[in-house]
This record gives sequence, C-alpha cells and structure tokens, in this order.
Amino acid sequence: MKHYTSIHDIDDINSWIEEAKALKLTPLKHLELGRNKTLGLLFFNSSLRTRLSTQKAALNLGMNPIVMNVSGDAWGIEFGDGTVMNGNTAEHIKEAAAVVSQYCDIIAVRAFPTLTDKVKDESEEVLNAFKKYASVPLVNMESATGHPLQALTDAITISEHKKKDKPKVVLSWAPHVKALPHAVANSFTQAMQKMDVDFVITNPEGYDLSPDIVGDTPIIHNQEEALKDADFVYVKNWSSYEDYGKVVNTEPSWMITKEKLGDAKFMHCLPVRRNVIVEDAVLDSDSSIVIQQANNRTYAAQLVLKKILENA
Amino acid sequence: MKHYTSIHDIDDINSWIEEAKALKLTPLKHLELGRNKTLGLLFFNSSLRTRLSTQKAALNLGMNPIVMNVSGDAWGIEFGDGTVMNGNTAEHIKEAAAVVSQYCDIIAVRAFPTLTDKVKDESEEVLNAFKKYASVPLVNMESATGHPLQALTDAITISEHKKKDKPKVVLSWAPHVKALPHAVANSFTQAMQKMDVDFVITNPEGYDLSPDIVGDTPIIHNQEEALKDADFVYVKNWSSYEDYGKVVNTEPSWMITKEKLGDAKFMHCLPVRRNVIVEDAVLDSDSSIVIQQANNRTYAAQLVLKKILENA
Amino acid sequence: MKHYTSIHDIDDINSWIEEAKALKLTPLKHLELGRNKTLGLLFFNSSLRTRLSTQKAALNLGMNPIVMNVSGDAWGIEFGDGTVMNGNTAEHIKEAAAVVSQYCDIIAVRAFPTLTDKVKDESEEVLNAFKKYASVPLVNMESATGHPLQALTDAITISEHKKKDKPKVVLSWAPHVKALPHAVANSFTQAMQKMDVDFVITNPEGYDLSPDIVGDTPIIHNQEEALKDADFVYVKNWSSYEDYGKVVNTEPSWMITKEKLGDAKFMHCLPVRRNVIVEDAVLDSDSSIVIQQANNRTYAAQLVLKKILENA
Repeated sequence: MKHYTSIHDIDDINSWIEEAKALKLTPLKHLELGRNKTLGLLFFNSSLRTRLSTQKAALNLGMNPIVMNVSGDAWGIEFGDGTVMNGNTAEHIKEAAAVVSQYCDIIAVRAFPTLTDKVKDESEEVLNAFKKYASVPLVNMESATGHPLQALTDAITISEHKKKDKPKVVLSWAPHVKALPHAVANSFTQAMQKMDVDFVITNPEGYDLSPDIVGDTPIIHNQEEALKDADFVYVKNWSSYEDYGKVVNTEPSWMITKEKLGDAKFMHCLPVRRNVIVEDAVLDSDSSIVIQQANNRTYAAQLVLKKILENA
Repeated sequence: MKHYTSIHDIDDINSWIEEAKALKLTPLKHLELGRNKTLGLLFFNSSLRTRLSTQKAALNLGMNPIVMNVSGDAWGIEFGDGTVMNGNTAEHIKEAAAVVSQYCDIIAVRAFPTLTDKVKDESEEVLNAFKKYASVPLVNMESATGHPLQALTDAITISEHKKKDKPKVVLSWAPHVKALPHAVANSFTQAMQKMDVDFVITNPEGYDLSPDIVGDTPIIHNQEEALKDADFVYVKNWSSYEDYGKVVNTEPSWMITKEKLGDAKFMHCLPVRRNVIVEDAVLDSDSSIVIQQANNRTYAAQLVLKKILENA
Repeated sequence: MKHYTSIHDIDDINSWIEEAKALKLTPLKHLELGRNKTLGLLFFNSSLRTRLSTQKAALNLGMNPIVMNVSGDAWGIEFGDGTVMNGNTAEHIKEAAAVVSQYCDIIAVRAFPTLTDKVKDESEEVLNAFKKYASVPLVNMESATGHPLQALTDAITISEHKKKDKPKVVLSWAPHVKALPHAVANSFTQAMQKMDVDFVITNPEGYDLSPDIVGDTPIIHNQEEALKDADFVYVKNWSSYEDYGKVVNTEPSWMITKEKLGDAKFMHCLPVRRNVIVEDAVLDSDSSIVIQQANNRTYAAQLVLKKILENA
C-alpha cells in the first residue's frame, strides 16, 4: 500500500483488524520504524480527535509529527488547472504538494467538501491533487467524500465488541442543525460491506446516500423497523445527497433514544450534539461505546502509518 | 498528587521549592521519566510564557508535548448539563475530556473567566469539568480563579532572592486599561499564606479580592503605607471583585515607580504594560526580577509534571 | 557566528555551499548536536516552506522545535521605547525576547515590513529588537528587508545546477496583484554579489531596488536585453522602493514565458502565482528548478543551525 485515501486501500479488512488489535496491546513495539521520519499533518478544516490521535499514532512509531493549519498558518491554495492566479490564492497545489513532499516522509490531509458543488466534491479535488503532485505517501484525514481512518476505527471497534459471529449493524441518520458531509457515512458503509455483518441503512426519504456507495445495502426509511434486533447502531447526520448539501428535514423524532436503542451498542464518530443526535441517557449509559471507539482512532492511524512505513 | 489545579495541591511548599531549585541545577536528569508519554496542552485563551515554558518542562522530562488551541483548531465545547446542543457548541466536555484522556497521559488546560458571571467563574466550570470527565491527571495553566503554576514560580523566585529569613512581601494592585482576571492575585495570595513571609495586600477601595482568598491577610488601602520596608513588591492589576469584573478605578497614581519601590525587588507575572502598571525605570533596573521569575516557570511546571509522573 | 540575520553573516559563501551539499548527503549525521536543545520559531506572518523546512532542519539536528504564531497564539508586542502601553499591545519586546530566550536555545523570527513606513522597515525594528533583547542566537526567517535563509538556499541551488564556472544570473521583476516586500530580492542580490557569477537585475523603471543593496550591480530596464544568454533567471515581484510600497506597474508583458526563458533555468522562492509571474509552460517544464530549490531550504536552515550550535 502506498497511499491510504479510501477504505478500498485495505486489502483484507479482517487481517487489518487483527493487526490493529495487536498494536493496541503493544503500541510502542515499533518505535524504531518511524525514527527520524516526519509526518506532515495539513488541516484545511477543524479537527480534534484526528489531530490528536494521528499525532499520537506517529509518536508511537517514533515519528516526528509537524502540524499545519493550511489557511491560518500559510495562505489560500489554488487547485484549478491553467488558472491565472490574480485572485485570493497565492500558491498552486502543484508546487505546494511537491514542496511539502520534500520536508515530510508522509503527508496527511484533511479537506472537507463544499456541499454546494457535487461534481467538485465527488472529484475529490484536494485529495486527488495531493495524490497527483505529492511524491510521498498520502493519508486521508477526512476528505470530501470519505473518512477511511474513521471507518477502519469503526471496524476495529465492532470486532472488539461483537457478541455473535455476524452482528446486525444499522447506520442511522439523525437530525442536526446544519449541513454535514457524507464522508463518515460513506466510508462506514463501505467498511461494513467488507465485513461479515448484517448491515442496513436507515434515513428519512430524501436522505439516501449516493447509489454508488450504497450498492446492494438495504435502505429502510422506517427507523423503528430498521433498528429491530440491532447489535450496533451507528448514528450520524448527513445532508441530502439528492438535493445536494441541503438540510431537507430536521425531524426530531429521528433522534436516538435509550428506548429505540434497546440492547444495541451506540456508536458515533464524534463530535456529537447531545439531545439533538442522541439523548443524554444513551451517551451516559454503558450502551454507548463512543469513547472506546475514539480510543481506536490511535490504533487505526498507527496501523496505516506502520503499513506505509513498512512499504517505503 | 493526582491533579495540580490549585495551590492547595501542594502539600509542603518549602520542600517543593527545594526540589524545584534542584531540578533547575540538573534539568535533564529525569529525561527517562516521561519518555513516550504525551502532554496535551489545551488553550481556550492566549498564552506565551505558559505555552513555551510548559512545553520546555515536558521536553526536559522526555515527554512529547501536543498543543491545541481549542477554539481555533477544533470547535466550541459545551459545558452545560442536559443542554439541547442546537447552538454554537459542537462537542460536550463529557466526550471531549474523555477522548483527549485516551491520547494524552497528562492534560493541561488554560481557560479564563467570563468576568461577567461571578457564580460561573467561581464554580471553575471548565477546569472542574475536565477534572470530572478526564481520566488522566490535569494541570491548571490558569483557570477562572487561579494560576497555581505562576504562584509556585513566584514562591521559588522569592525563596531564591530573599535576603532575610522572613521577608516582607507586598501584593500591590496597579492600574490597567481593561478588566483583568483575579487568578494570579488569588494564587499568589494563597502561596504567600503558606510561606514564612510578612505578607500584605494593597489596593484601592473597591478592589478587595474575594474574602475567601484573603482570609487573615491585611489589606491596606494606602499604597505608600503598605510598601514601607517591603523586600518584594508583586504588582498586578485585577478588576473589581465586589462590582464583579468592572474597572472602577484607573488611578495612575497607583503605578509603581522607582521611588515607590525603594530597595525592594519588583515582581510581575508578565505580560506587563510598561508605564501603565510600572514605569520603565523599574523594569530596566536591577530591582526588577521579572525575567528571572519567568525563567522559573519552566522549573515550576517541570516539578509539577515530575510529581504527577512519579505518582502515576 | 552568533546570529544569522543577514547574508553578511556568511563569512565565506563558497565553503558554506560545500558544507550544505555535504549535509544534504548525510542529513542525520549530526543528530546529537542539537539533542535536548529547543528552537523557538516565532511567526508574526504566514509561512509554509520556512515553517516546515526549518522544523525539519531542527529535527535533523536532534533539536526540539516549538512553533508559535505570535499574534494568534499570544498578543500584540510593543516595540516602541518609552511607550505608555495603554493601547493594543500587551507585552514589550524587552520582556518577550528576554523571556523566550530562557525557554529556547535558538530563536527564529519571521516579521514582514509595513511597506508603508520606509524608515521603520529599514530600521528592521522587530529583528533588531530581538537581536538586542534576546540572550540567545537569532535566525532571520524573513524580515522587513532580508530573507537570508532563502538567499543561502538560492546560492546552493545555483552551485548545484550551474554548467559553467561563471554562469550568467538574472534577477527579473515580474508583475503581481499586490504589494510585496523587497526582502527576497535584496538578499538574493547580496548573495549573488558574493558569488562568482555574472549578475544583472532587470525591472521596469520605478522598480529599482535600494541603491544600498544594488551597489555596482547593473540594472537593465529592458527585460529582453537583460535575459540574453542567461543561465539562471530568478523571478520575483517586489513593490516600488522609490514610491515606497506602491504597485506602480502591473505590466503583464513582464511575465516570464518559455520563449523568454530560452535555455536558462527558472528559479523562484515560492509561493508563485501561475500565469501572473510565470506561465504554466515554464513551471511544468524541466527548465524550472523551483522544487529542487525549495528542497534546499532544509539544508540551508540546517547549516545555519549547525553553525550556531557548534559556536555555542
């Protein structure tokens, strides 16, 4: 594996999960692997878990992390081909990516979608430009349409907490005050499709994810029906894909409650808005495994970095 | 000691001072103590000395510091219990503190008061929420009502520079253009109350600190009288406690001058506004020990981190 | 050498170039030289290459870099002597520089010019204040009138790519949408004056650099004539020096094209605005050595830090 930009860069998800669990037991075992190597973390958008856990993962491998908030610390980056750059962008990605590649052994990038321009977002303009112009391996720390570090984390967490060979996993939409990306839902869906789970998606009409992502996965528009006998309920808001980037429904009845959850485990990528996405009673109970899930962010990132370093 | 959130976490200030002085002589002696451990520094507010000296202290112990400006790098954190989070905050402290605890071995937090809501500030909402929901030790890098790393620094500095067994120490209010917190004055007062010094506070009427902090310490409203025969004059502005957070007096006659200082040493936590708080002639003379004082920030922080690491 | 604040701090540019080339071959050879020492990088302005390459250089020497965006992370710094600080600045450089010197073994500073106050800019107020009040070595990461780390980089790059003993080097002004500093052009000019090259400057009338910098170097106002038989064309925009800080000409005919360049190598410090300063056809061809040039930023910075550490 050279880059880790999509869940499809995982060749065998089950062996990756086992390797991540092993790393978690002895996180400092590979301290020499990344010694004197640098991970550049470039943030075009805000981050808490990804920012900290990816640095921690790098440190566990002996690497030196260097963090940069691109817009605040530097300036606007141009992605258009052939642009006459007399506007607000001061450096072209062709130069930026090639240059940063010379200071960092691996580059990790976070760049959210516009949520206004579907074609641009689906082209993964920023991520693919880095992939094209960087000369070193690239890690996706959440792009316009995917968040594969989160999805690997989720797969590890389900594997750790499952009590039957083939658990039922439900991805449920929940209401939110503003338009959110599809990245987490997309990558989670793709990860579940690779695992031996009984997987369904539930969301209100008008909120179906991209058909290219959903594939054969059932979408059930009745949340109650979908949640029946669930072992894991993964909750997330996303904006409309069809009416791209719009909030077409904020129906509070889709909020997850303790009653709806039943005996299932509650998962969420965080940050989560309490009493909007899910009621306090769920998050404050043992049914919630969001903290354990967030802990696995370190080992998912560490596994990805380890595989890249071993392949270098 | 698990946490260091208040000057009261110091069991024996004299033995701490001696240990800090020893650390200062051989700062790299304990390089293995923090090896492969991470200190997360979370700033809700600006910082220069604390930011740099606490990182330096961590590095002197072999730790990896990770810095995050919470608002700029991530998003608004919610502290209210039971809040329906459909406003400007995107993550609850319950999740944030628990999650960060999994990436960092020690968490250090800076969070200033509102200066508009006395009850909220005195409840130490942010600091206590981290204490409650974090699962790792917590260090106070200045909270709503206290700055115990600064106060420990000040105690070390007075011990180093004193020329008699029981020096006279005066905490003097000085004028400032905007409303400032009580944190430094509070913690300094508490530290002096633990030391063998002759301690008095002087400030204009209307500026008395909280009676809970002041206790038996004399408050003298006549600055000239208070400064008489002082060995150390610790100068600081603070806003009114009674008329909470208000600037009720900007009387320039309270500025510290070389004449007023006499043979005493001048101390200030910095940053200090020249010719507002104190005249140039003081800061530019040998009577000022503010630079030596700032240097001790490293060893105060290093001692605190060392004690936490040893206790872990 | 104690400080590196100007190209004139280089005693023998040819030996420095050779030493930098040697470092580039074995960048980790001096990992013990900076062990447990700290480089403080203070940014008053945005930075990408300097930010990353200087951190990388420090890491290659075993140093711990600590980065601070002064305005965003802390507060306004006062540089005026005797100022009554009741305005927007909260800390005087006298304290700031002296304090930071106690936490860092070397301080590196970036501070751009006002471009409105020539006298202030030429006094190098920020850089010289740090030099005066800091007690540790200082590195200029681009100041009001100079960028000596860039110029050393440029000298190394020309030495690596030259195909004759005394190549012809042309510094050409190019159009830009906003007023830019003279720092890069100034330091490049000074570096070329120290090297065995045939050096000329070309710019439109009204854009001559400071006579104190230009000295005997020919300024040719006809770009075509100047570029004739060039081996290296170093392109850069700068604002007017005479009509200080003004954009008096945005003549697009001064943009560098493949045709104009001929067989010469194209150099630029980056960031570069494509199709404003230079056309895509140049940057996307083998004639451009801007990426190789940016790579040398690491080794220029590493050489400077190494010399400072060895001298300490």
